[in-house]
Amino acid sequence: MRNTLFLFALLLLTSLSVFAQQDMKADIMAAEQKFMTAFQQGATTMGDYYTSDAQMFPPNSDVVKGTAAISTFWKGGYDAGIKRAKLETMEAEKSGDQVIELGRYTLYGANDAQIDAGKYIVVWKKERGQWKLYRDIWNTSAPASMPAK
Amino acid sequence: MRNTLFLFALLLLTSLSVFAQQDMKADIMAAEQKFMTAFQQGATTMGDYYTSDAQMFPPNSDVVKGTAAISTFWKGGYDAGIKRAKLETMEAEKSGDQVIELGRYTLYGANDAQIDAGKYIVVWKKERGQWKLYRDIWNTSAPASMPAK
Repeated sequence: MRNTLFLFALLLLTSLSVFAQQDMKADIMAAEQKFMTAFQQGATTMGDYYTSDAQMFPPNSDVVKGTAAISTFWKGGYDAGIKRAKLETMEAEKSGDQVIELGRYTLYGANDAQIDAGKYIVVWKKERGQWKLYRDIWNTSAPASMPAK
Repeated sequence: MRNTLFLFALLLLTSLSVFAQQDMKADIMAAEQKFMTAFQQGATTMGDYYTSDAQMFPPNSDVVKGTAAISTFWKGGYDAGIKRAKLETMEAEKSGDQVIELGRYTLYGANDAQIDAGKYIVVWKKERGQWKLYRDIWNTSAPASMPAK
């Protein structure tokens, strides 16, 4: 009996561990493709791709929290000239019930001219069966511009 | 027998879940305090506070990987005039065997003059029993500076 319990526990822990290590890249890339498409189509309801308790950390801004504020932020970016965002997953690692993604982004304006390129970390979480952005932070990889004289 | 196994499994899953939800803030703040002290003392071996497979995403830079490169980066920042880094944990959430921290930073130069203030996300992981930075990204909350004319 004791051996059975021990083996059972071992089996359970092993399967949990394998589950934790599985590569989540395909799932995350699919969710990200929807994000990119929605952005390119006018970026009107980008908050829907985030969890209801999401926090976004944009450069040159304070923390942006929640669906409405996140939608407003991205719509503002689109209206200011960002017409396309390319997101490339470098790594997607499962940790508990979340996935931590490392990626690279490129932003394009009118005529597909490159505006900026950098990197990001997104923590993904499932909400009602859908992978959504739960934590989102990025920064540019371009050299710092000289301060204006 | 079947009931015993079921109860055992339930008990195991419950305890794992409670463990997953515990507040890790005190542990992370203690690790962060060591980081701040080491920085202020000359920032010579900051890579030691990161896991051996760490990735750091600094603004205006490509990804910085590994102990030596991370040490060089921080020593460069210290030598360039950053004399103190204040790190404040807003949230530390356990996810699997990692902790995802949201925080605010303030950088100070000579005479404790503020250089920059912003926010960060750090993924912490235990290496040889110590909490270490595994993923580290930040950006400024200051408004974008006007491009030089």
